[in-house]
Amino acid sequence: MPAPTPAPDPSPAAPRPLRVALLGCGVVGTQVARALLEHADDMAARAGAPLELVGIAVRDASRPRDGVGTVVPRELLTEDAASLVDDADLVVEVMGGIEPARTLIRRAIASGASVVTANKALLAEQGPSLFEAADAAGVDLSFEAAVAGAIPIVRPVRESLAGDHVRRVLGIVNGTTNYVLDQMATHGLGLEEAVTEAQALGYAEADPTADVEGFDAAAKAAILASLAFHTRVSIDQVAREGITSVTADDVAWARRTGHAVKLLAIAEQTEEGVSVRVHPALVPLDHPLAAVRGAFNAVFVEADGAGPLMFYGQGAGGRPTASAVLGDLVSAARDRLVGGKGPHESAYASLPVLPAEAAVTRYQVRLLVADRPGVLAQVAGVLADHGVSIDTVRQTAAEPPAGVAAEPSAGVGADGTGVASLLLTTHAAREASLSATVAALGDLEPVREITSVLRVEGV
Amino acid sequence: MPAPTPAPDPSPAAPRPLRVALLGCGVVGTQVARALLEHADDMAARAGAPLELVGIAVRDASRPRDGVGTVVPRELLTEDAASLVDDADLVVEVMGGIEPARTLIRRAIASGASVVTANKALLAEQGPSLFEAADAAGVDLSFEAAVAGAIPIVRPVRESLAGDHVRRVLGIVNGTTNYVLDQMATHGLGLEEAVTEAQALGYAEADPTADVEGFDAAAKAAILASLAFHTRVSIDQVAREGITSVTADDVAWARRTGHAVKLLAIAEQTEEGVSVRVHPALVPLDHPLAAVRGAFNAVFVEADGAGPLMFYGQGAGGRPTASAVLGDLVSAARDRLVGGKGPHESAYASLPVLPAEAAVTRYQVRLLVADRPGVLAQVAGVLADHGVSIDTVRQTAAEPPAGVAAEPSAGVGADGTGVASLLLTTHAAREASLSATVAALGDLEPVREITSVLRVEGV
Repeated sequence: MPAPTPAPDPSPAAPRPLRVALLGCGVVGTQVARALLEHADDMAARAGAPLELVGIAVRDASRPRDGVGTVVPRELLTEDAASLVDDADLVVEVMGGIEPARTLIRRAIASGASVVTANKALLAEQGPSLFEAADAAGVDLSFEAAVAGAIPIVRPVRESLAGDHVRRVLGIVNGTTNYVLDQMATHGLGLEEAVTEAQALGYAEADPTADVEGFDAAAKAAILASLAFHTRVSIDQVAREGITSVTADDVAWARRTGHAVKLLAIAEQTEEGVSVRVHPALVPLDHPLAAVRGAFNAVFVEADGAGPLMFYGQGAGGRPTASAVLGDLVSAARDRLVGGKGPHESAYASLPVLPAEAAVTRYQVRLLVADRPGVLAQVAGVLADHGVSIDTVRQTAAEPPAGVAAEPSAGVGADGTGVASLLLTTHAAREASLSATVAALGDLEPVREITSVLRVEGV
Repeated sequence: MPAPTPAPDPSPAAPRPLRVALLGCGVVGTQVARALLEHADDMAARAGAPLELVGIAVRDASRPRDGVGTVVPRELLTEDAASLVDDADLVVEVMGGIEPARTLIRRAIASGASVVTANKALLAEQGPSLFEAADAAGVDLSFEAAVAGAIPIVRPVRESLAGDHVRRVLGIVNGTTNYVLDQMATHGLGLEEAVTEAQALGYAEADPTADVEGFDAAAKAAILASLAFHTRVSIDQVAREGITSVTADDVAWARRTGHAVKLLAIAEQTEEGVSVRVHPALVPLDHPLAAVRGAFNAVFVEADGAGPLMFYGQGAGGRPTASAVLGDLVSAARDRLVGGKGPHESAYASLPVLPAEAAVTRYQVRLLVADRPGVLAQVAGVLADHGVSIDTVRQTAAEPPAGVAAEPSAGVGADGTGVASLLLTTHAAREASLSATVAALGDLEPVREITSVLRVEGV
């Protein structure tokens, strides 16, 4: 937090303080309160007026909580969120969840307050209507902390790229799953083992469903797509697949073929509309996203003019999230002081959100086949029938990667025929064609097993 | 550039067009003009008013140039830059160099126009006085394109981190030298060879001095330091060392010890002031900056609240630079329409800029010493005498990295004694102590040669 920073220029007439209401007093709320209370002078210098924390709404003011009584004076707590909101210039919502957050944010907007929120679930579900309300009221609704924690992504995409056209966004936006996949790659752990370790270290919740099933990433994908393409995307329009089907073998084979496995949030604009999806994907090792290790997040943006850009940092945690909230708060305060609102997109487009099957991607498929002449031709024929062209085919079992059991390539199948294993990588094709191809391969007589199907992105 | 984007909300009273003057018609200027002319509707929707390109100032309007007559109508060119500026709301300066850019920008500010510039040399030399003039006139002076090309860094640092405190910035801000060092690492090339290759591919100028000697990076370091610490730093206060002393051996040994060699622009705030420097440095391979390959740029920011952040992308080129210029132009236009200016720092601090000797860093030193008992104790004694503590010592010659000649560790020196080679890495200490230590080591009787001295950063 601000240490030796510039003294504010004493302005001729000191502006009146702006009244800040804080909704929620968890790890993020406590850090926001701390900055407002302990660095009041710095915040005032940066915002252009004092930011006065007038109260903190909590459900149960009597419940003991970290920081209250020490960092945060107990008398700031209130259970009357509605009155607090009615009397504020700026409302910071860090309580999370849909209700009462939605009602309170709507109330704040209606009373003319600007709102800063870190609530990804709410924005992914209700974003468009909330932004419309904020536009109509002429107030800011800022949400930098809701996308990728501390990483500045909203402002760069909306303002820095205002003269450019974003074509695609690929994000590692869930630290838990990135940590899990990274541990699988680095230490050869299985998924369950890696999740257990992540839980022990506090990187994963006791119930890891929201992370490993991709729900958290899907909420952020919806927000990123809305932001990048100035359109309305809600979480139920996001095709979602978690990491539960990813095996230690997948991760080891990925590395052998020059890839890392990452859970990606993907938003792409095509001529037909917008494709928004979350799934595990093979990313080439020389792609910047492959170097995003541990619980870090990163958002990779491809724009027509700027080319590739990447934004990297911590996607969660009290202090990083509070940093993003405070940046928004200072901007919202400045906007109020000049009587304007920030550059939000009032002109929302209504681009069609494409169904999952319309996405264009590449597949890497591992399969076991009967080891006899003509099988490869049959396999290639199935791909050709579906209009899918092959990038590479390799027989994989000769040198299994370290820690991976050799597949029974030279083994003998149940029918007495030898079994070979193949690794197929396709060129780009529609998801519908690719998944139909895999289904048809599974029905092919010489195919013994489809061992793994992973998409390849970032090429 | 904007393809299928939202239709603008037709506002009740259409705002009058903002008049844009473009100074310079090189690769960046042509791309800016193209966007303003070919995507006028999109730009208007984003800016909130039409952006009318009223003229392009060039030195010699009769000289043939790419795009003029095709992308850019010839009649937009003018040699009368002063009149063009006097009549504009927004002035875009992409001519480069100190004069006449400075005079024209001052003229624009004085006449009340907002200015967007990509001119790093001018800002590194004249930034503070230009920003003061813009503040006094209440106009924007935007410079996103001057720091790291297309990479949004000004806005994230100034706005997204407005509630945080930046502690350190480490930047790879020169694509030419990053390409050269990357080629040395990847293909074992020598410096000259790699520079020649970079010239052949258009990554380096015929005269590569500004890049390889670190002048370009030093200008950007000055701007980054000013931005991160809200203080005044000019290029002559930046300690600068280029990559000319980096050898193929250095790069190969770096990799062997788990590092990449990068030319870094470093800005750090300590309790005593600000340290700003440019020099080659060893960066640990697991640091995100080590993964920045080829001619790409990246700026790594360490903030108290947000923690580590990195911004990655293309640092040069016509279209990427134009993207950054256009983002600034849209913001400046919006600011004008609400009658305000953007959140510039009028409250500049005057933090002391520390001399080069006051920087705190680590050294990795390779040296050849007489191979006899007691030498290591003597070497260690020299470090202790200077208050420098040793992190690691290793005898290096046993397994030279691939492509590196074995040092004559088991050889026989001129005096008939065997020669051993040592690799010393220090803990953090002041540059003054470290350089004095190296000088003293050079004077030590058993030391035959100081083979290499490189700083270690990012640990």
